[in-house]
Amino acid sequence: MAERNSFHIAVVGATGAVGQQMLKTLADRDFPISKLSLLSSARSAGKKVEFKGKEYIIQEAKPESFEDVDIALFSAGGSVSKELAPEAVKRGAIVVDNTSAFRMDENTPLVVPEVNEDDLQNHNGIIANPNCSTIQMVVALKPILEKFGLNKVIVSTYQAVSGSGAQAVEELEEQTKSIINNESFEPKILPVKSDKKHYQIVFNAIPQIDKFEDSGYTFEEMKMINETKKIMHLPELKVAATCVRIPVATGHSESVYFEIEKDGVSAEEIKALLMDAPGVVLQDDPDNQIYPMPADCVGKRDVFVGRIRKDLDEDKGFHMWVVSDNLLKGAAWNSVQIAESLIKLGLVK
Amino acid sequence: MAERNSFHIAVVGATGAVGQQMLKTLADRDFPISKLSLLSSARSAGKKVEFKGKEYIIQEAKPESFEDVDIALFSAGGSVSKELAPEAVKRGAIVVDNTSAFRMDENTPLVVPEVNEDDLQNHNGIIANPNCSTIQMVVALKPILEKFGLNKVIVSTYQAVSGSGAQAVEELEEQTKSIINNESFEPKILPVKSDKKHYQIVFNAIPQIDKFEDSGYTFEEMKMINETKKIMHLPELKVAATCVRIPVATGHSESVYFEIEKDGVSAEEIKALLMDAPGVVLQDDPDNQIYPMPADCVGKRDVFVGRIRKDLDEDKGFHMWVVSDNLLKGAAWNSVQIAESLIKLGLVK
Repeated sequence: MAERNSFHIAVVGATGAVGQQMLKTLADRDFPISKLSLLSSARSAGKKVEFKGKEYIIQEAKPESFEDVDIALFSAGGSVSKELAPEAVKRGAIVVDNTSAFRMDENTPLVVPEVNEDDLQNHNGIIANPNCSTIQMVVALKPILEKFGLNKVIVSTYQAVSGSGAQAVEELEEQTKSIINNESFEPKILPVKSDKKHYQIVFNAIPQIDKFEDSGYTFEEMKMINETKKIMHLPELKVAATCVRIPVATGHSESVYFEIEKDGVSAEEIKALLMDAPGVVLQDDPDNQIYPMPADCVGKRDVFVGRIRKDLDEDKGFHMWVVSDNLLKGAAWNSVQIAESLIKLGLVK
Repeated sequence: MAERNSFHIAVVGATGAVGQQMLKTLADRDFPISKLSLLSSARSAGKKVEFKGKEYIIQEAKPESFEDVDIALFSAGGSVSKELAPEAVKRGAIVVDNTSAFRMDENTPLVVPEVNEDDLQNHNGIIANPNCSTIQMVVALKPILEKFGLNKVIVSTYQAVSGSGAQAVEELEEQTKSIINNESFEPKILPVKSDKKHYQIVFNAIPQIDKFEDSGYTFEEMKMINETKKIMHLPELKVAATCVRIPVATGHSESVYFEIEKDGVSAEEIKALLMDAPGVVLQDDPDNQIYPMPADCVGKRDVFVGRIRKDLDEDKGFHMWVVSDNLLKGAAWNSVQIAESLIKLGLVK
């Protein structure tokens, strides 16, 4: 069969924080699009969106919207994905789903192309895009696993509010204005819109992302733990996570402690490895105060790593600081990258 | 000798962020003061400060300023302490020093009253007040050490800018206004005023507090590591720290992973222990979204602990989230508390 060179792409949730970045990324990458269908829930249908200078009217996503679609990028919430992703697959589309709906389903590959692109070969129509905070961490850990083995990961996150959607970014901005102007305000979105209580995010740190499980861990923490094991094919890897929201609009940061299997490895060896790792930009020069920061990562597709140092007690222990744009590598770019991999591997028939 | 019941107190650095909180804390505690000497560098001398409704004029701190002083609370920078603390001691004062000048000196006790009040007995005139981020962590760890033993600590901090002084708080506020009003701004204070480069703190996270050592660790991280071992009398304790500045004015937060010595301990046992621990307030009710946050801790003297949960892989491993007002328990209150302990123990002659 001759290689296809142009594809019908659908974006579901095109008006959301991630959907907007998906369109921008498709344009930036000059993605080979023969037809573009921009879809959403009924609520956002009718809105107008521009793509490469052309205006599109958002259509309500329905089962029949996916006729003739080659690749459907979903980012409109878990319930939309659960209902419509199987309908899209039924009609021959490959779905790249940015929600948590199918991530832990054993028949659904959970893919970060730098880490486990091969898993795409076993897809059954749906490919899950991992959680934002997971993606950037595994991109940094994968080359370390390959060369030195990996036993244990303990991560504390510093997560941006855009991970909670466009409304959370608005809340951060409006609340900041209220505080600066000494006006009262009422938190309504963060930490979790559908949870009982809402807290101030400006000049604060909220140790809750997503709801709590009975175990005392949040769903976000369990996503990091379970998805990391699945993506890296390491069910026995020890992973612990504490996920915290801080007053940053875009750009997740992570303080990552990890233990490798090999003895006697130096921090310099880890740095040399990450300097050449796919998707990673090493920013690690303490003498010149060079380290990654969320304010610098916005709009970039890479994962930035710095502050790499050996633990002072554990020969196999290391610390690093990992930063990435949560809307791009954490969501839109990883989804588009999966779509590019699918094409490259000849999986889009 | 009859017990003294009123004391001549000197506050050095009375106009600074911590000095102001020292005065407020002395007033709040109704500290038994017979005479109050408010001192500072030449730069701030002549400024007026109120204490309990009376106006004081700040005097320049000189060796002779400490004649007849019983307890001198120093918080005017390391160089002032190095020069004047020995002069104060020579004149019979006991110095409680809030700088890092003498903390690791083996003849100087480094004291958090809830943890190692007894060390005051061995003082040689100077008592060092630990680093803010260290204090709140050891208050939470001490009861755990006592009951279950302690092998290992890995902490990632979320530190407020007031730890860098009043100028850093002004920078946070001014920068916030500039960003909200779309005006340009030039970072000048954070992360470290005397370092080469300065970065935006608003909507950002800076993984540098204090300058870097050659090892790649910052001085702040090494303070947490070394001071924790000294205060807890555990030179062999494994401690690792990653210290990060976030856009919060006051209130340090810490994501703490720790491993105990005893097998089979539950998170509920840790919670029960901390519920009754001195200086600790347990805020741990995920079902009702109760956990500590910096915005809630300001102006309070306690250390707030929550999000306590057992590690999913290590039977002896636990996670917790520790928050405290870095200007109070992290600095001013711990200093005043040391002064109260000195009096209680009959060490002020």
